[in-house]
Amino acid sequence: MRLAELSRHSGVSTATIKYYLREGLLPPGRQINATTAEYGEEHLRRLRLVRAMIQVGRLPVSTVREVLGHVDDESLGRSIRLGAALWALPQVPEPDEDDEYVRAAHREVAALLDRLGWENAKLLTTISPAYRSLVVAVAALRRLGYDWGAERLAPYAELMHRTAVLDLDNLEAQPSEAERVETAVLAAILNEPLLRALHRLAQEEETARRYGFE
Amino acid sequence: MRLAELSRHSGVSTATIKYYLREGLLPPGRQINATTAEYGEEHLRRLRLVRAMIQVGRLPVSTVREVLGHVDDESLGRSIRLGAALWALPQVPEPDEDDEYVRAAHREVAALLDRLGWENAKLLTTISPAYRSLVVAVAALRRLGYDWGAERLAPYAELMHRTAVLDLDNLEAQPSEAERVETAVLAAILNEPLLRALHRLAQEEETARRYGFE
Repeated sequence: MRLAELSRHSGVSTATIKYYLREGLLPPGRQINATTAEYGEEHLRRLRLVRAMIQVGRLPVSTVREVLGHVDDESLGRSIRLGAALWALPQVPEPDEDDEYVRAAHREVAALLDRLGWENAKLLTTISPAYRSLVVAVAALRRLGYDWGAERLAPYAELMHRTAVLDLDNLEAQPSEAERVETAVLAAILNEPLLRALHRLAQEEETARRYGFE
Repeated sequence: MRLAELSRHSGVSTATIKYYLREGLLPPGRQINATTAEYGEEHLRRLRLVRAMIQVGRLPVSTVREVLGHVDDESLGRSIRLGAALWALPQVPEPDEDDEYVRAAHREVAALLDRLGWENAKLLTTISPAYRSLVVAVAALRRLGYDWGAERLAPYAELMHRTAVLDLDNLEAQPSEAERVETAVLAAILNEPLLRALHRLAQEEETARRYGFE
């Protein structure tokens, strides 16, 4: 399809598409003469992905370019390509390792990972942003006087693991590796608002089941 | 305990405690003479709750006062008191009901609730902020070309329901009704960062289990 059709199918203006092409967020089309290029399904998919990252994920263009660089780099291993978006999302700041609550949180999370048998996560503690976010969240609770320990966290972690299994099963159902990697990026950006809304709706449902509507 | 002790035990400065007292976020102590008041455990608990709402939840003082008004109003039914915090959290804007994606999202969510048998949630669709958030999230996906329908959403919703069951079980384990209501407020504010971090960590764990570390 030509640029005008790509614009019509994607709902993205030709000016914006040209901007994405210049910024390297969209690969160039197949040049058929000096002024015309031909675009395919993969351009439509990529455009959708870029819009999701910029409009829904509110990622800056430089981050989008970085994520796409990982997504497209076939020399990288699968875990790294699939994880590229998660690692590029805005992260919590480094916890203050001298803080007593942070130290206690590290111990609790270590106990949790032991209890769960998450051997891979244990190997990633020094580099994983997810591990860091968890330590920060547990430390914030402890600072307020809530000692959420491994025992209380474990059943939540088990349910989140089952959620992650669904995520990866959905991923593997995609027809091509390019689409799997793109789906991983989208999932990292789009699933959180969805899960949050489902969780709150489930809380309303369960509260009403237990106590009625009063 | 006196004001100075309340400050020491809570880690909140006396100036801030006096501000909370003036703003009605903390009930007055028991006056033992013209210049001295006595505070109890309930003040310590309430202070912890106010700090969580302001510092972690970043709620404005007027919202905190509104939530506490519901929490303390024993004439309200249990579901309403327990739900007070969820309903007071920042909400997504009203979806545009003329938008075709929003209309399609309403249909999908209705099919989802039917499939799940969430009869209570079905009765709340016109007033529930969680329902509205879900419609907005599904509409955003559809606008990007991702038709996440009831079939794909259902297993996620089931897991979020099990998460909500844990939330309410934890609540019911609290020793008094006042603490149960306070725990509900805290859960609404503090659990999301925790669940998000656990979910991401679980994704890392599961990805490494399936594809190794490359």
